[in-house]
Amino acid sequence: MSDAFDPRPAFVLVRPQMGENIGAAARSMLNFGLEAMRVTSPRDGWPNERAVALASGAGRVLDGARIFDTTAEAVADCAFVFATTARDRDLTKPVYSPQDAMAEARARGARGERVAVLFGPERTGLENDDIARANAIVSVPTNPDFPSLNLAQCVLLMGYEWVREAAPAPQVALAGTEWANQAEIDALVAHFEDRLDQAGFFFPEGKAAAMKLHLRNLWSRMPLTRADVQTFHGMMRQMVRWKERG
Amino acid sequence: MSDAFDPRPAFVLVRPQMGENIGAAARSMLNFGLEAMRVTSPRDGWPNERAVALASGAGRVLDGARIFDTTAEAVADCAFVFATTARDRDLTKPVYSPQDAMAEARARGARGERVAVLFGPERTGLENDDIARANAIVSVPTNPDFPSLNLAQCVLLMGYEWVREAAPAPQVALAGTEWANQAEIDALVAHFEDRLDQAGFFFPEGKAAAMKLHLRNLWSRMPLTRADVQTFHGMMRQMVRWKERG
Repeated sequence: MSDAFDPRPAFVLVRPQMGENIGAAARSMLNFGLEAMRVTSPRDGWPNERAVALASGAGRVLDGARIFDTTAEAVADCAFVFATTARDRDLTKPVYSPQDAMAEARARGARGERVAVLFGPERTGLENDDIARANAIVSVPTNPDFPSLNLAQCVLLMGYEWVREAAPAPQVALAGTEWANQAEIDALVAHFEDRLDQAGFFFPEGKAAAMKLHLRNLWSRMPLTRADVQTFHGMMRQMVRWKERG
Repeated sequence: MSDAFDPRPAFVLVRPQMGENIGAAARSMLNFGLEAMRVTSPRDGWPNERAVALASGAGRVLDGARIFDTTAEAVADCAFVFATTARDRDLTKPVYSPQDAMAEARARGARGERVAVLFGPERTGLENDDIARANAIVSVPTNPDFPSLNLAQCVLLMGYEWVREAAPAPQVALAGTEWANQAEIDALVAHFEDRLDQAGFFFPEGKAAAMKLHLRNLWSRMPLTRADVQTFHGMMRQMVRWKERG
């Protein structure tokens, strides 16, 4: 394999109909850093004005797209092909979840194997002829009573899975047990705001709004239990009592 | 908590603008079995005809949506609130990945805690006033050079994460048959070996054993169903008939 091998999978739009959907698919790909689009027999020819209009900002995915007459030609250089499909098929074939499919794609890409993912036309999805050509099926775990995703949504989910596991883990807050609800937090914010206002805390006046926003944010990022909230109310009440004793 | 507690998170559309996007968000929610939509101050009022038109099939999510004037009211009964945002903010706040956020939501839901996820208006995203009210931020790991997701796409990814880990691991789709057992594979190996032997395939004789071992290994690494095995027997029988016709 040459140094120029790109481990990212090719996304193959099979006989797409609406240019809008091709453009939206290009955006969804670029959202997750994928740029190798292939298209077989686009209904309205190529290039497609509506695709370009809808791709705004992701036009370079369309500019680099490779156009083929058939699915066979589109995947001729690929070592492993996934077919995305919602419906059950009368074909015996391994079925992957999106996460397992993209884990497989990452492993194969790292070994220098080119992977393709087929996406079917909007109304009908992939035909059995396309699916028979794939090594495995990818099935998104949608609600059985409402399974249908549009083309760009299906592309989006596969793109998301391409990056999900590799993405750096963000910071996670500690979990607690009896959390205060938002109404209780609101009451606490209001209690402190009122008393601090009386006390002349929000000074100068020009900064009062920013100070109050800061305080609300401070309270909201604290993992407060109901007991914590009562403790804070008690502290403030005690400060007021102390002040009133003069 | 009552028996009627629904552990699924509420998705809160904050000041959404286009009815189309509200309808598409309803579809994205129902794709992953989520039905608790809340909406604060929809720009074009409520109900919204365009939302209904675009929600086709997911109208019951709109029918059940709860409308509020403010974000504060929309999350008053929630124990934990996530804010989805792409941009960095000048607010100190824990940041979750979508997968960690929905894992947290599942854990809290299982404990009887109501969780809300805030989604901002299309152009501007959530304001700092909304985010200051949330306990944590959720950030989708998009391409830094092309990060923007539309409202329904953001809803789709969060919905997908709600079900992803809980979804049953997919299996090989067997199309109404079963895996062949070893005896059936043995019989197939023997059938092919015998006929290929008659046909003079194993030549020269000194290599016959190695060729037979290679063939057995080839058959054994193929994931064959009973139907596949019958198909191969049939192919070989037909070749023999063809030969015998002379």
